[in-house]
Amino acid sequence: MRRTELSPATFTDLYELTMAQAYWRSVRTGTATFSLMFRDLPENRGYYVAAGLTDVLDFLEAFEFTDEDIIALDNLSIFDRGFLRFLAELRFEGEVRAVPEGTVCGPESPVLEVTAPVIQAQIVETFLLNQIHVHSLLTTKASRVVHAAQGKTVVDFGARRTQGTDAAEALARASYLAGFAGTSNVQPGARYGIPLFGTMAHSFVESFPTEEEAFRAYAETFPDRTTLLVDTYSTENGLRNAVKIGLGMKKRVQRLNAVRLDSGDLGQLARTARRMLDEAGLGEVQVFASGGLDEFSIDALVSSGAPIDGFGVGTKVGVSADAPALDCAYKLVAYEGRPVMKLSAGKRSLPGAKQVFRKTDADGVLAGDVVGTADEAAPESTRPLLEVVMENGRRVRQEPGLDELRERFREEFARLPERHKALKNPTPYPTSVSTRLKELTERVTAETKEREGLS
Amino acid sequence: MRRTELSPATFTDLYELTMAQAYWRSVRTGTATFSLMFRDLPENRGYYVAAGLTDVLDFLEAFEFTDEDIIALDNLSIFDRGFLRFLAELRFEGEVRAVPEGTVCGPESPVLEVTAPVIQAQIVETFLLNQIHVHSLLTTKASRVVHAAQGKTVVDFGARRTQGTDAAEALARASYLAGFAGTSNVQPGARYGIPLFGTMAHSFVESFPTEEEAFRAYAETFPDRTTLLVDTYSTENGLRNAVKIGLGMKKRVQRLNAVRLDSGDLGQLARTARRMLDEAGLGEVQVFASGGLDEFSIDALVSSGAPIDGFGVGTKVGVSADAPALDCAYKLVAYEGRPVMKLSAGKRSLPGAKQVFRKTDADGVLAGDVVGTADEAAPESTRPLLEVVMENGRRVRQEPGLDELRERFREEFARLPERHKALKNPTPYPTSVSTRLKELTERVTAETKEREGLS
Repeated sequence: MRRTELSPATFTDLYELTMAQAYWRSVRTGTATFSLMFRDLPENRGYYVAAGLTDVLDFLEAFEFTDEDIIALDNLSIFDRGFLRFLAELRFEGEVRAVPEGTVCGPESPVLEVTAPVIQAQIVETFLLNQIHVHSLLTTKASRVVHAAQGKTVVDFGARRTQGTDAAEALARASYLAGFAGTSNVQPGARYGIPLFGTMAHSFVESFPTEEEAFRAYAETFPDRTTLLVDTYSTENGLRNAVKIGLGMKKRVQRLNAVRLDSGDLGQLARTARRMLDEAGLGEVQVFASGGLDEFSIDALVSSGAPIDGFGVGTKVGVSADAPALDCAYKLVAYEGRPVMKLSAGKRSLPGAKQVFRKTDADGVLAGDVVGTADEAAPESTRPLLEVVMENGRRVRQEPGLDELRERFREEFARLPERHKALKNPTPYPTSVSTRLKELTERVTAETKEREGLS
Repeated sequence: MRRTELSPATFTDLYELTMAQAYWRSVRTGTATFSLMFRDLPENRGYYVAAGLTDVLDFLEAFEFTDEDIIALDNLSIFDRGFLRFLAELRFEGEVRAVPEGTVCGPESPVLEVTAPVIQAQIVETFLLNQIHVHSLLTTKASRVVHAAQGKTVVDFGARRTQGTDAAEALARASYLAGFAGTSNVQPGARYGIPLFGTMAHSFVESFPTEEEAFRAYAETFPDRTTLLVDTYSTENGLRNAVKIGLGMKKRVQRLNAVRLDSGDLGQLARTARRMLDEAGLGEVQVFASGGLDEFSIDALVSSGAPIDGFGVGTKVGVSADAPALDCAYKLVAYEGRPVMKLSAGKRSLPGAKQVFRKTDADGVLAGDVVGTADEAAPESTRPLLEVVMENGRRVRQEPGLDELRERFREEFARLPERHKALKNPTPYPTSVSTRLKELTERVTAETKEREGLS
């Protein structure tokens, strides 16, 4: 698919490389710490779910400009040959501290910190932001859908509408982590062991002389995993055909899994479907619904008591349609041990390497986070969230598998108060700044202003 | 980065493969035609720009399940071994008709049609929709930004916030096609020859003892391509430092390219910057603005006469924030020469292979499209848009290069009436249905209803 095969290291903004050359030329090789955090919560979001760490660590361990990359960079006629020789030898040898994937977090709270020689820490910015952003965006969105579904099955059908194939893979993984039952997308299913789901398309029905013949052909091919899509021509008629097939399967000691509704008034059609199936003695056949669903419409259907057993969600969840981007940043917070910060209007950053301390009440309920300096003692009844996950450019341990992350998320999300999970106008999960970090911020602000001659 | 390397053929919804097995088992090998079209326009969109064809044709030419893919599919315990042997031999051998990349189009008008043995045509659906969708989504969004900028330079800074790395590559290409000057993203820059742009990050400034030292180090490294980011601590102070550096460069017969504003009231700060630069005799130094920009804010800045020479756009354009997905579909329209259609509530499709006829008035202004049957004669003053681009699974010719597509788009977009380009509440570019296609639709509707026993 690619005209030239460049390595992931070249997925970077040009300025990362020009700054690197300026650092290299100025022989600035000091150690830098960068913090990656989410800032203002979008409308109708009360929390973030941090994710994407596995892909980031894979990237950092493999980070290397190949010979082809160097030739391509040379062809741009921007870079010094000496610098390109330096780049060819460059590897990531730094430290990464991060919260585990699937951690619920609030605004302004670092989810990842990189400490490395400044060029190494800087040059990976674009990729790190891109991946942590897309994984966290989609995990956060999917967690809302799981919450709205109140225990009913939800399946990811988003692959055809995500913004690219990479996003589809992130979506399948993110949504499974957040509690979806599985995905329709074969590639991430096979890669990560995520359960695969699928029904049939309208085209399948249309290609046969009649709907009934199409249903029969499918049921004969997959007697143990048949879901019939009933709305190609008329949902009521489709349901009658499905009942016929379901009864035939039952006679052969097989089982029709489900019927799938994909258009019209899903709540009302689900009631019709349930009644027709039950009256035919097919109480075991489930009703599955899809078509433009998201957490809001699923909430409405579930709250109204619609007899729907499972939901397939696509576009609106796959692009996080109501909040298609999160506000995140990767900020230099220390250089050669000196805490630094921005003073830009409305974009001020907090200086220095940090730790996030999580408070829980006596019942284990999450009670907010305190962002402090990396070296301060944990306040009472808190535990630190940022853990060392990489040293000298190598993982310190294998991350937990996807099923373990999913279970951990389920357990933690259950301890997040409902007010932060509300689909509309949630209370933001609270983050505060420790006294020590406040004092440091004041001191660095004053020193920076003085150095720059600002009043 | 990948735990297992599966081929792009596995980027598919499970149901494409289960349907394929049902077709295979039923020995249904008839030729099918599928139409890919965009349906309802989102709010504030008056047209679509179709794109993504190059990636689609690359995918179809290379389409093949590798041995590793087959093993992975076998491990799912869903598929028949005989079917997997069939899949291992499967290639795409069909015909593709499509509108050229960068074609402006309206709702319901097919932008691509695939005619092939049904399994081949069906199994590629997920990838085709995903890629045509993301490229068209981003090209459409970018075209609005170019329109709003009224000839001023626009550069893609979106790589860190797109939904995945694949989307970032699509964005760089899409936005250049639509008229951006270039991208910050090195990988697509090197791959497609898109001009690369870059400035510096706040972190670079912060890592030096003072802003002035940072500016100096950068200017010394890149005397011919320096843009100074002036808002790290205080924009006015940053501008004073930039003027100092600019004057120094001028003395050395070098040239400071630009200053970059990235926060605050960009219109007002641009006036301040312009005045300070001009008063210092640095009239040649440009003012570049970034920070949360999209077509709406760029329109406001340009309309107010803000002295900004160029814009860097990131998140909001990179995820098409105001319309993060388009409504598109890949529908079976014919099977073994028999036109077919859906009758689902609100989702009825038009049957049969199609052609799109473009009307232009005497001055070459685009006057709307007529969607007709593939075999009808072109109405007067129209030209057909769908061209055969692939036969027997091979391109019939190389597509035009990106620069040629860009020039063609510029030329065509200039002939699209302003009312369709309006940023808010545009008039939709009109699409009508030919008499012949209307008659066919009525006939097939009646036949289908009769066959299915619907009144």
